[in-house]
Amino acid sequence: MTAVVGRPGTGSGLTLRVVQFAFATASLVTIANAYASGSYSAFFYLGFSMFLQLLWSFILACIDIICLLGNAELNEPCPISAMLVGDWVVGIFSFSAATASAGTTIFFKKDTQYCTAFPQLVCDQYEQSVILAFVACLLPPFLKVN
Amino acid sequence: MTAVVGRPGTGSGLTLRVVQFAFATASLVTIANAYASGSYSAFFYLGFSMFLQLLWSFILACIDIICLLGNAELNEPCPISAMLVGDWVVGIFSFSAATASAGTTIFFKKDTQYCTAFPQLVCDQYEQSVILAFVACLLPPFLKVN
Repeated sequence: MTAVVGRPGTGSGLTLRVVQFAFATASLVTIANAYASGSYSAFFYLGFSMFLQLLWSFILACIDIICLLGNAELNEPCPISAMLVGDWVVGIFSFSAATASAGTTIFFKKDTQYCTAFPQLVCDQYEQSVILAFVACLLPPFLKVN
Repeated sequence: MTAVVGRPGTGSGLTLRVVQFAFATASLVTIANAYASGSYSAFFYLGFSMFLQLLWSFILACIDIICLLGNAELNEPCPISAMLVGDWVVGIFSFSAATASAGTTIFFKKDTQYCTAFPQLVCDQYEQSVILAFVACLLPPFLKVN
């Protein structure tokens, strides 16, 4: 295995997971506290996928901490492959939820002016949650490209 | 290079690109003919991304035909890498457009019952275009996994 930034079992891997966990939690809290977010499928799906994302990041962060405390390197291909597949599945899930919610938010804000017509729709809160979700799910591929 | 289904310059690669081109064209024609699709950002973005997708599939299909007619194998890493990167960029673009449009369509159909209230909204046509777009953009990764 070559040195890859954010690799499981390393300090950079732990930092990546902690940051990802923080963004996913912030996105979930923002959308869960937004008015009527449960009534719109895209926002409900976003909340659910962010819950999965923070759970996944938490598990990987725990594995990183165990490896770092025990001074053990995670080199076996089997757990690394399982983590990679899990990262892909959770990532695609989160990315699709973020884009679907972005589509609905743009519909409210730009296409129909619903945000002005119905002030109870907290469009800024929907937007913030979508941005936080994009950061949470795009962090690992962005790091791997660099 | 190992034998991969849908590899550039092979018969299966050409079939993949022709099928992808057909689905992207069908999706573009469906959304372009749907009522007011240009007024909704998600559907406009879907049409634009399907145009890019069919253009990309057409270029790769032409390269495949040239290779097959000249009986030449495409083995150099440089054009293969360029095609892979292009495939990723166009694929992510199409996938995000398809999910954003799916979010908007579900909002019309399920969340608000707009499709029943406003019969001029051709929700079935939006839905068909989204499904065709998903097939067009998910075909290459699905083939590579198998």
